[in-house]
Amino acid sequence: MGLGKVPRMIDTPRTRSAAHAYVDAAERRDWDAFAALLADDVIYDMPQSRERIRGKPAFLQFNREYPGDWHLEVRQIVADGRHAAAWLDSRVGDGSQPACVWIELSEEGLITKITDFWPESYDPPYDRSHLVERL
Amino acid sequence: MGLGKVPRMIDTPRTRSAAHAYVDAAERRDWDAFAALLADDVIYDMPQSRERIRGKPAFLQFNREYPGDWHLEVRQIVADGRHAAAWLDSRVGDGSQPACVWIELSEEGLITKITDFWPESYDPPYDRSHLVERL
Repeated sequence: MGLGKVPRMIDTPRTRSAAHAYVDAAERRDWDAFAALLADDVIYDMPQSRERIRGKPAFLQFNREYPGDWHLEVRQIVADGRHAAAWLDSRVGDGSQPACVWIELSEEGLITKITDFWPESYDPPYDRSHLVERL
Repeated sequence: MGLGKVPRMIDTPRTRSAAHAYVDAAERRDWDAFAALLADDVIYDMPQSRERIRGKPAFLQFNREYPGDWHLEVRQIVADGRHAAAWLDSRVGDGSQPACVWIELSEEGLITKITDFWPESYDPPYDRSHLVERL
């Protein structure tokens, strides 16, 4: 029961709601609702391609312009203080891909930092077939 | 302030500790400490390669046998009720790769489910250079 405990407990429900609202607004293409969740100086990172987008206008444009009839569904959202992680299923047509999204909120409850991972399928990197089953 | 609120608040610190201890025990190759965190029927999923490992003995062997002088470092851990997500940096020699690990605990506080994602680097899938900077 350290000193940081009370703020964390107050922040957590707000962060959890923001993470759900972020996915929901993107799925509905409700860009006004989406923008209202973001800090003006939001930073969006895609570490796999070493890309960064700075600021709400560019990040909104990136999402509006993202190609394909994509859809997002929440598998799991975990919120803890001003940090959250979302495990999403993303669908475009018949294809499906998971995403892991890390979100950080400001003191005011706006999203200031988003880090997206889009893990792609691959073959097992070495033979561990004595231990695993294939799904 | 729904009905699930009090159990979640009680579980969260325990889940957060278990997630940290899981990474720490693996990094130290302390397989006794690692095993003590796991339910006997733990399930370990690697969705990218569609692999599943069932049960503590096989999962311990998988970790003991994992090739390379790998090291793990926590970037972020978020815990929420009996669920946690860990964003790790994994290093083997000079190479570094992120991992996103989703953890679920039993009522008794043991890890029952682990889902690992190992996102690999790739080039931007389309041209968004009018919006992004490269890191």
